[in-house]
Amino acid sequence: MSRPIFNPQLTPLGDLRHLLGIEGLGRPILEEILSTAETLVDSSNGTTRKVPLLRGKTVANLFFENSTRTRTTFELAAKRLSADVLNINVAASATSKGETLLDTLRNLQAMQCDMFVVRHSASGAAHFIAQHVEPHISVINAGDGQHAHPTQALLDMYAIRKFKGDLSQLKVVIIGDLLHSRVARSQIHALNILGVGELVTVGPKTLLPEHFRELGARVEHNLDPALANADVIITLRLQRERMKSASLPGQDEYFQCYGLTQRRLQLASPDAIVMHPGPTNRGVEIEASVADGPQSIILDQVRCGIAVRMAVMSITMGNVERALHENKQ
Amino acid sequence: MSRPIFNPQLTPLGDLRHLLGIEGLGRPILEEILSTAETLVDSSNGTTRKVPLLRGKTVANLFFENSTRTRTTFELAAKRLSADVLNINVAASATSKGETLLDTLRNLQAMQCDMFVVRHSASGAAHFIAQHVEPHISVINAGDGQHAHPTQALLDMYAIRKFKGDLSQLKVVIIGDLLHSRVARSQIHALNILGVGELVTVGPKTLLPEHFRELGARVEHNLDPALANADVIITLRLQRERMKSASLPGQDEYFQCYGLTQRRLQLASPDAIVMHPGPTNRGVEIEASVADGPQSIILDQVRCGIAVRMAVMSITMGNVERALHENKQ
Amino acid sequence: MSRPIFNPQLTPLGDLRHLLGIEGLGRPILEEILSTAETLVDSSNGTTRKVPLLRGKTVANLFFENSTRTRTTFELAAKRLSADVLNINVAASATSKGETLLDTLRNLQAMQCDMFVVRHSASGAAHFIAQHVEPHISVINAGDGQHAHPTQALLDMYAIRKFKGDLSQLKVVIIGDLLHSRVARSQIHALNILGVGELVTVGPKTLLPEHFRELGARVEHNLDPALANADVIITLRLQRERMKSASLPGQDEYFQCYGLTQRRLQLASPDAIVMHPGPTNRGVEIEASVADGPQSIILDQVRCGIAVRMAVMSITMGNVERALHENKQ
Repeated sequence: MSRPIFNPQLTPLGDLRHLLGIEGLGRPILEEILSTAETLVDSSNGTTRKVPLLRGKTVANLFFENSTRTRTTFELAAKRLSADVLNINVAASATSKGETLLDTLRNLQAMQCDMFVVRHSASGAAHFIAQHVEPHISVINAGDGQHAHPTQALLDMYAIRKFKGDLSQLKVVIIGDLLHSRVARSQIHALNILGVGELVTVGPKTLLPEHFRELGARVEHNLDPALANADVIITLRLQRERMKSASLPGQDEYFQCYGLTQRRLQLASPDAIVMHPGPTNRGVEIEASVADGPQSIILDQVRCGIAVRMAVMSITMGNVERALHENKQ
Repeated sequence: MSRPIFNPQLTPLGDLRHLLGIEGLGRPILEEILSTAETLVDSSNGTTRKVPLLRGKTVANLFFENSTRTRTTFELAAKRLSADVLNINVAASATSKGETLLDTLRNLQAMQCDMFVVRHSASGAAHFIAQHVEPHISVINAGDGQHAHPTQALLDMYAIRKFKGDLSQLKVVIIGDLLHSRVARSQIHALNILGVGELVTVGPKTLLPEHFRELGARVEHNLDPALANADVIITLRLQRERMKSASLPGQDEYFQCYGLTQRRLQLASPDAIVMHPGPTNRGVEIEASVADGPQSIILDQVRCGIAVRMAVMSITMGNVERALHENKQ
Repeated sequence: MSRPIFNPQLTPLGDLRHLLGIEGLGRPILEEILSTAETLVDSSNGTTRKVPLLRGKTVANLFFENSTRTRTTFELAAKRLSADVLNINVAASATSKGETLLDTLRNLQAMQCDMFVVRHSASGAAHFIAQHVEPHISVINAGDGQHAHPTQALLDMYAIRKFKGDLSQLKVVIIGDLLHSRVARSQIHALNILGVGELVTVGPKTLLPEHFRELGARVEHNLDPALANADVIITLRLQRERMKSASLPGQDEYFQCYGLTQRRLQLASPDAIVMHPGPTNRGVEIEASVADGPQSIILDQVRCGIAVRMAVMSITMGNVERALHENKQ
């Protein structure tokens, strides 16, 4: 198993220290996260147990962009690991200048935070932060601009495996605004690393440029034929503000061309599952009856998110400690 | 002891699952809450102990209406039970449409919250939410519109018993804007269920319609004679915005007719206690020297609130688990 | 060791109950705080351990003035002591009238909070609150107006001793806007109580009046000669809004006269340390290369802040319990 020669996410031992993006991670690392998540779920009722894996550690949620939903899942995951949690809404403070951001980080480090969960509207923000933290700190990217949202992609992989099993036997179709979607980028990397059978992306030319082929996905602009034999259908959120800049004619027309309807769902494999990273725009990218229908696993994705985030947090924190220990000897 | 044939607050075993309102609850359920609260109080100093009854559980405070005070008491009660607490200010998020509210709920459920403490400006909101949650979730109404505020009524019952003993021997007088008061509605139900000796409500006709008789209270509009031999005097908060709509002449005149003054207090039983759900408008519904005087137990009510809320939370959570367990067998 | 006849910060036994200011505290009390802080630091890696000293206690952060940074350090210190923490942003609520402030306090007391950490823009606010709390409550001043910021001064003492040892052998220079600085006032008291060798304050006449001599500091207006042989140089934050009222000509000229530059640092002792309470205005009171240079211990001050605040909280809470216990016997 070849590893990239230098990956800022890894410790010198080659273990995951930060989770910044899926790109460049080896399959064993992804497998470890998914199997660790499984051990955190109580098989009798599907919920996660409270465990002491991060007792005494402090997790700081640094949200430069507001997202109650994502912040809540990380807060819950950290609390289930028995960590102390600090919620810091950095948008509220004055951190317009880069220097001020680093000052904030250095202060939080000096306060002995152990993990930064970072959400930022600028692509690369989590990488920037990871480059500047002390060796005892782990950084988790909770979404940076249009770049990456790795924990979302991992929980999606967990959910797909749980509901559909071996990825190599599956056809996965991702529909919508791939161009602006950090979720889709991370999903494509994860699916390829884990050896997906067939991967098709579908969207209008303005939102799905040809260069997505280079990421390892087939690029289509016509939804109906692409859905044939699909086992997993992933719909993406269409942000209203994007519609204008992409000179889309309007959300009705978008729905007509790319909305996942009951009718279209029947073009896929009869036991196909429907996914969406949430929150959904019903009537834009997905029909309400599909989002709430029997093939939808949208809420299961949320459910998987707690265990997967707990797994990522406990694995990176453990690796940081191991690296510090090795370093001393 | 007859129970209502269907009560959405109860498990199939007839135990309290949600606390939405006092109406329709049997006396044994109220007695259980009050006696459980007693066991949570350290008799040596009157404070509540930290206990592990909700360890591993997650309580989400869903406040659609801002109330730092009520939110704080529930947060403290949950933390004393060793639960993890999430504060979610839903007013801040966009939940104008019902569909979005349900989406928020479903997501919080999927994140494995165990209890929703709900405050909402619309009557019936807590019932609506309780109808839509999964079987493992308990809903506590922390005040919905003008409908109910059951934990406030329960802590008042606890406080009355603590200071005055057996309810059947007591004359209780509730003064003020009963029409708009969720607190008063819940108090009247609780007092009747627990067998109060005599219950009198007093207020202007615009704020105390005749139909309050049907709830089981005497209706009076003249305060002085109503106070004779009163053992417990409950004053209610007069909301300024209500004064206009009720075409009240003004707060000075209101105080003259219905304000609880030192002089009026002397019309009651000499050892009568004075209560108020807080926060008080001194000089409107109560004279400052009465609110801070020796017969006032206003701060004791707050003190009782922690233990009573801990009791409600631990009882409902225990009943949910028992019902789930029975269901599996 | 003589003690002041009456000090509102002390229990009847003469122990520290509230920390409101440094003035009037005996040297043994300061020494106890500093040595307790030392025991809370893990010598192997310089971090603080999670300890159960405040388990079951509730700490309320009452911030009448916004300060994410200070609030965060107190929150972290309380959580490391295993306390439950309530963050109450009182600025948001309506507490314009003194009566309302007392009502808020009484309610929090009734909810059985054990400690109030108070930040307020008015000098004396923490004292006012301490005068009105029940015997089981301890009040910590987290900065009141231009009066005092005792935990900042204590962490500075801790940091100076850690890096430079015995205070009696040291020359300490404090530079800047001493007039408006609660930090400087508390530092001067602490340095004198602990027996500093030599203490010099430097600043423009508008920001450093002659009466600072009475606090026990030499007063200078010319920075360069004052720096000779300095072992510790403390720079203070210059608040922009102060610049106008003090009719300062501008921040460039201020920097030219009182900014700590590389060049000026060379006038001090070669192993002098540079301190700042944060956040720094680089290019106003300190040159960026000095703030980030090898002699700066600015981030170490933050690091020391957690342990020192943990020490203050555990000592005062312990003394409150001891006093209550004695009282009962």
